[in-house]
Amino acid sequence: MIHTDALVIGAGPVGLFQAFQLGLLGLSVEVVDALPFAGGQCMALYPDKPIYDVPGVPMCTGRELTQSLLKQAAPFLPATEGEGPHAHRHLHLGHLVQGMANAADGAWTVTTDRGLTFQAQSVLIAAGAGAFLPRGLGVAELDGAPNVHHHLPEDDSVAPPWAGQHLVVAGGGDEALSAVLTIAQTAQPAHRPSRLTLLHRRDVFQADAALETALRELIAQGSVQLEIGLPQSAERESATDGDAVRALNLLGADGQTRSLPLDHLLVRLGLSPKLGPLSTWGMALERKQISVSTASFATSLPRVHAVGDINTYPGKKRLLLCGFHEATLAAHALALALRPDAPSHLLYTTTSPVLHQRLGV
Amino acid sequence: MIHTDALVIGAGPVGLFQAFQLGLLGLSVEVVDALPFAGGQCMALYPDKPIYDVPGVPMCTGRELTQSLLKQAAPFLPATEGEGPHAHRHLHLGHLVQGMANAADGAWTVTTDRGLTFQAQSVLIAAGAGAFLPRGLGVAELDGAPNVHHHLPEDDSVAPPWAGQHLVVAGGGDEALSAVLTIAQTAQPAHRPSRLTLLHRRDVFQADAALETALRELIAQGSVQLEIGLPQSAERESATDGDAVRALNLLGADGQTRSLPLDHLLVRLGLSPKLGPLSTWGMALERKQISVSTASFATSLPRVHAVGDINTYPGKKRLLLCGFHEATLAAHALALALRPDAPSHLLYTTTSPVLHQRLGV
Repeated sequence: MIHTDALVIGAGPVGLFQAFQLGLLGLSVEVVDALPFAGGQCMALYPDKPIYDVPGVPMCTGRELTQSLLKQAAPFLPATEGEGPHAHRHLHLGHLVQGMANAADGAWTVTTDRGLTFQAQSVLIAAGAGAFLPRGLGVAELDGAPNVHHHLPEDDSVAPPWAGQHLVVAGGGDEALSAVLTIAQTAQPAHRPSRLTLLHRRDVFQADAALETALRELIAQGSVQLEIGLPQSAERESATDGDAVRALNLLGADGQTRSLPLDHLLVRLGLSPKLGPLSTWGMALERKQISVSTASFATSLPRVHAVGDINTYPGKKRLLLCGFHEATLAAHALALALRPDAPSHLLYTTTSPVLHQRLGV
Repeated sequence: MIHTDALVIGAGPVGLFQAFQLGLLGLSVEVVDALPFAGGQCMALYPDKPIYDVPGVPMCTGRELTQSLLKQAAPFLPATEGEGPHAHRHLHLGHLVQGMANAADGAWTVTTDRGLTFQAQSVLIAAGAGAFLPRGLGVAELDGAPNVHHHLPEDDSVAPPWAGQHLVVAGGGDEALSAVLTIAQTAQPAHRPSRLTLLHRRDVFQADAALETALRELIAQGSVQLEIGLPQSAERESATDGDAVRALNLLGADGQTRSLPLDHLLVRLGLSPKLGPLSTWGMALERKQISVSTASFATSLPRVHAVGDINTYPGKKRLLLCGFHEATLAAHALALALRPDAPSHLLYTTTSPVLHQRLGV
């Protein structure tokens, strides 16, 4: 059980800035996200595309913005050395929030699919369009297999699980093609798969033209095999849960089924946001968005606030900079609720020794 | 008469971002500010102090933030080459807004003290704590004299008016001491005054210790003269308005009055914000702040919005990042009002070809 003043659901840009503002106001904070990396949509959908409307930042990519926000929040989510590039204290990645229940004294108990339990004095939902979960191939036998992957490893100094083995990448969009190109061009030859197959349902891609040109070249060179077929089922080593998948059974354009043996499968069909369990928590909703007050971004549940793309109010625009404002006002409202005796006048980071101490500057 | 979709009053951080958002939505924009430089409070009060809470910018100074916002707004306020570092098209510096009156078709006519007239379809008040006007010495004969200054020249490649002459700097705070140090250490000797005097009412300063140490050294070296006395009146070349001041009459600690001859006077007593004529325009106010709607940041006057530190609403915090949000929602509300037939769905700078064209990227 992790005790905290504030639990932030979502480690996208708004969730990270929410953690910064809560920390700045002296509250303890924990952050949880379903993705295995911080940055939310910005990192999952457009890590390398330019953003032009972050105030005071004429241009940055989703990745750069995420890195800046992690750096800004580092006094409250410090990086942990030697545990990979995405390890930060109080930041729990790859956890899908499931249950939320009332606890004593107005607190909330929140649980995740991988067994974390938080006891939080307040909950801030910064979940964007919902938890970004990888789309699957729709083949039941793949569920829970340890050699089925969805994400590229974040730390390229470590050998990926498919090094020296046969890797099948499934998909025909940008996510699949860019994964194949990244893997085929891995800097360290020992980290590459011994065989790399791209599996798609037809010989037409819905991808960036430059990506497709580069891919077609690798296929022509023989560095990548192209396999066309529709996965019907999979063969596992045994029926035991936790056993590896050894082959996919594909339906070809000729109507015949054949087997594609593999050591690892990387499913790259994109991410699909799911509001998931949050929609059952009893908050007032409006067209699937959480209704909030513009003074505090409070929901209809006590000490539960919603910020960023997931909320709605008159005038709402789903822009990063609006989420930053919402997170700030939510943090101030919660600080007042949880620390009623603390001085309530506004402190500025430029001049306040108290804030400088919290920031470690 | 300058015709525009939107007139922004105030070129502080929020006013600059307001111009960016209006331009991004396809509206023409003009910006006016009483200060001779952009950046408002950030530049006038803490140009070199760190700010830690701009989202996605772990640390920047007021000057850096201003430069970034000018760069971001440059597609709509382009820099004009060869006219000094602060010259931008559509940005009118050193103009104090005075009158605002209804014009035809719901537009507003706005005038400044230096004779500009705007016909604006909408007005956005981003005036912070009001216009930052230099505090005076309280000596009536100084009014309107051409050799009385308040600001250091922004462009140090050009000789200042006091080059080779006797300059008296008045004041005993950071603004006065840093001006004396800057002037005494001017890189080009030909740009320095022939004689430099610091005038203060007593031999005690209310300034940064490092500034005072450096100043005392210059006084000991004889590079700066220190004059203690209280200005009582001034002597002008003639009684004609527009004539130069030739001497200040000072009351000394000994009760005697003496004359301090000078060629130029630089008054550095700090800036004082004045809400000024805006307070007489008939907008609903609450404790001297302009009351606004949180959906559009509209005031009680049609097509007049107020953003940043000058407005108030439930939950208001006087933070830069809140002003950025307010400016964005105000711009969207105005775009809808002024271009009712334009598509109203939200475009993103990451993906929209229309926005890319407006930004010139």
